[in-house]
Amino acid sequence: MAAKKVLIVYAHQSSASFNSAAKDAAKEVLAAQGCTVEVSDLYAMKFKATATAEDITGDVKNAAHFRYAEETKLAWEEGKLCADITEEQRKLTEADLIIFQFPMYWFTVPAIMKGWMDRVLTLGYAYSEERRYSQGILKDKKAMLSFTTGSHESMFSADGVNGDMNVTLWPLQNGILHYCGFQVLAPQIFWAPSRLPSEARGTLLEGWRTRLQGVLSEKPLSFTPLDCFDGEKGFQLKPEFQEKNASKEYGLTVGIHLGKALPLNSQMKAGV
Amino acid sequence: MAAKKVLIVYAHQSSASFNSAAKDAAKEVLAAQGCTVEVSDLYAMKFKATATAEDITGDVKNAAHFRYAEETKLAWEEGKLCADITEEQRKLTEADLIIFQFPMYWFTVPAIMKGWMDRVLTLGYAYSEERRYSQGILKDKKAMLSFTTGSHESMFSADGVNGDMNVTLWPLQNGILHYCGFQVLAPQIFWAPSRLPSEARGTLLEGWRTRLQGVLSEKPLSFTPLDCFDGEKGFQLKPEFQEKNASKEYGLTVGIHLGKALPLNSQMKAGV
Ligand SMILES: Cc1cc2nc3c(=O)[nH]c(=O)nc-3n(C[C@H](O)[C@H](O)[C@H](O)COP(=O)(O)OP(=O)(O)OC[C@H]3O[C@@H](n4cnc5c(N)ncnc54)[C@H](O)[C@@H]3O)c2cc1C
Ligand SMILES: Cc1cc2nc3c(=O)[nH]c(=O)nc-3n(C[C@H](O)[C@H](O)[C@H](O)COP(=O)(O)OP(=O)(O)OC[C@H]3O[C@@H](n4cnc5c(N)ncnc54)[C@H](O)[C@@H]3O)c2cc1C
Repeated sequence: MAAKKVLIVYAHQSSASFNSAAKDAAKEVLAAQGCTVEVSDLYAMKFKATATAEDITGDVKNAAHFRYAEETKLAWEEGKLCADITEEQRKLTEADLIIFQFPMYWFTVPAIMKGWMDRVLTLGYAYSEERRYSQGILKDKKAMLSFTTGSHESMFSADGVNGDMNVTLWPLQNGILHYCGFQVLAPQIFWAPSRLPSEARGTLLEGWRTRLQGVLSEKPLSFTPLDCFDGEKGFQLKPEFQEKNASKEYGLTVGIHLGKALPLNSQMKAGV
Repeated sequence: MAAKKVLIVYAHQSSASFNSAAKDAAKEVLAAQGCTVEVSDLYAMKFKATATAEDITGDVKNAAHFRYAEETKLAWEEGKLCADITEEQRKLTEADLIIFQFPMYWFTVPAIMKGWMDRVLTLGYAYSEERRYSQGILKDKKAMLSFTTGSHESMFSADGVNGDMNVTLWPLQNGILHYCGFQVLAPQIFWAPSRLPSEARGTLLEGWRTRLQGVLSEKPLSFTPLDCFDGEKGFQLKPEFQEKNASKEYGLTVGIHLGKALPLNSQMKAGV
C-alpha cells in the first residue's frame, strides 16, 4: 500500500484527557505504518468557530445581505478565503483519511469542531448541487468519527433512553461526511471512559491501536447510492429500490438508509 | 393567561435575511400579546462559541487536566462563570419559552448556536444525573426550533435522500432540549425560502405569525417518560412499555421514541 496521509481534527482542551491519548495513539500507530499524520488541534489553534464575513479577505459581494455559502463559494473560486480556512482545506485536500477525535457534546461534536465543518467544507470546494453523497466531491477520501461519551452504551441502544446511537450519528455521518462524498468508516466509540477503572481504559486504547493497524483497508459503511433517488422528483427513493431498502441491504432500524445494517456493537467489537 | 417571557436565540449574520424576518415577526407578534421578548443576537454579540477555561473567572480547580463539565459546575455553584454565560443563564431562567431561530447548517444548528448550547446549558444549572429528560431541571419551560433550510421538503422525507427530518432533529430535540427537561414544541420549518418566489415567502411568514398567536398554548411533542426506563438496568426501556412504544403511542418511524407519532407535515400544515 502506498504511503497515505492522515488528518486528525482534534477537539479537546486538555492534553491529559482520554481524547488526547486516543489522538496520540492514532498518530503513533499510523506514523509507524509509514503514514504522514497532520493534527489540527482546534483549541490549541484557537480555531475560529463562527461563520462570518471575516472569512473572506477583502470585500464581500453583497455586504447588505450577506449569504455565507454563496460568498465563500465566490471567495474560494477567487482565492480569497481567509488564511485558516485555506490552510485547513490544504490539509484536507492532501489527506486520504480524516479522523475526527472529540468528546461528545450534546449528542454531537463540540461547537469548535462544528465550526471547522461549517467553515472548511465550503460550497464549491467540498460539495455542490451536482456533486454530493455517493457522487460527492470528496469521494476518494475516508472519514471517521472517533469519540468518547459520558453515557454508558446501554443508554444509546435502540431501547435506551438516549435512543439508538446510529440515529444520533445520522446528521454527522450522512448529513456531513457522506454528503461531501467521504467514505464513512464505522465510528470508534469509547463509552464513558471516565467511569471505567484505569486498566479498562488501557484496554480500550489497545483496541483502538489494533483497529488502527488495519484502518486504511476497512470497508466503509454503506449508504443508499444517490442514483436510487429520483432527481426529477425531489430526490425521493425510486419505487424499484423500495424493496431493496426495506430488506435492509442499505437500511438499518429505520425506513431510511442509516448505513449498513449491522448492530453498532458487533461492528465495534470486531474492530471492523 | 399571565404575561409570559420569551427568549429568542437568533443566529444569522444579516438583518436582510429571511431568518431575521422570522425573528422580527416573532418579536412583534409575541410583544403584541403582552409578552416580554428578549433576543440574543449571537453574531451581533460576537458570541464566543468555544468551551474553554476562560469561561471560568479566576483559577480553575484542575488546570493540569481541565474538564469542562465539572469545572463549569463548580464555577456555577460558586458564582464564577464568566459574564456572558451568566447573562444568558439569567435570560433563560426568566423565560417561559425559548425560540431558537437559525438557518440549518449541516443538518443542525450553526456552530455559534451550538456554542450557546455547549456553554450556557451547564451541568448543575441545566441538567444533572438526577434531573434530566421528563424530570429535567428546565421542565417548566417550553422550547422550539425555528429554522430555514436550503433543501426542499421532499429531500427530508422518510424516503428522501436526506432521510426523515425527525431523525435529523433527534439529537437537538431529544438530546438537548428534552434532555434538559424543556417541553419541546413542534419545530417551525421554513423549507428552502431562497428557492421560493417572493409572495410565497410572505405566505410562510404569515403562517408563522398565525402560529405564534397560539404558540404559548400549544401541546408539546410527546417523548417516552423517563420512568419507562430502568435506571437500575442502564436506562433501557422496561419490558412492560415495549408494546406501548411499538404501538407508537410515543414512537415515530423508528423503534425509538422520536416524539409524537404524527407526520411532520400535518403538524406543520395545521400550524399546530
Ligand atoms: C458541554 C458538554 C456536553 C456533553 N454532552 C454529552 C452527551 O450528549 N452525551 C454523552 O454521553 N456525554 C456528554 N458529555 C460528557 C462528555 O462526552 C465526556 O465528559 C467526555 O466524552 C469524556 O472524555 P474526556 O476525554 O474529556 O475524558 P477525561 O475525563 O479526560 O478522561 C477520562 C479518564 O481517562 C483517563 N486517561 C487519560 N489518558 C489516559 C490514558 N492514556 N490511559 C488511560 N486513561 C487515561 C483520565 O485521567 C480520566 O480519568 C458532555 C460534556 C460536556 C462538557
Ligand atoms: C455552512 C452551511 C451549511 C448548510 N447546511 C445545510 C443543510 O444541512 N441542509 C439544508 O437544507 N441547507 C443547508 N444550508 C443552506 C441554508 O440552510 C440556507 O441557505 C438558509 O437556511 C437560508 O436561510 P436565510 O435566512 O439565510 O435565507 P436568505 O437567503 O437570507 O433569504 C431567502 C430569501 O428570503 C428573502 N427575504 C428576506 N426577508 C424577507 C421578508 N421579510 N419577506 C419575504 N422574503 C424575505 C431574501 O431576500 C431572500 O431572497 C447550509 C448553508 C451553509 C452556509
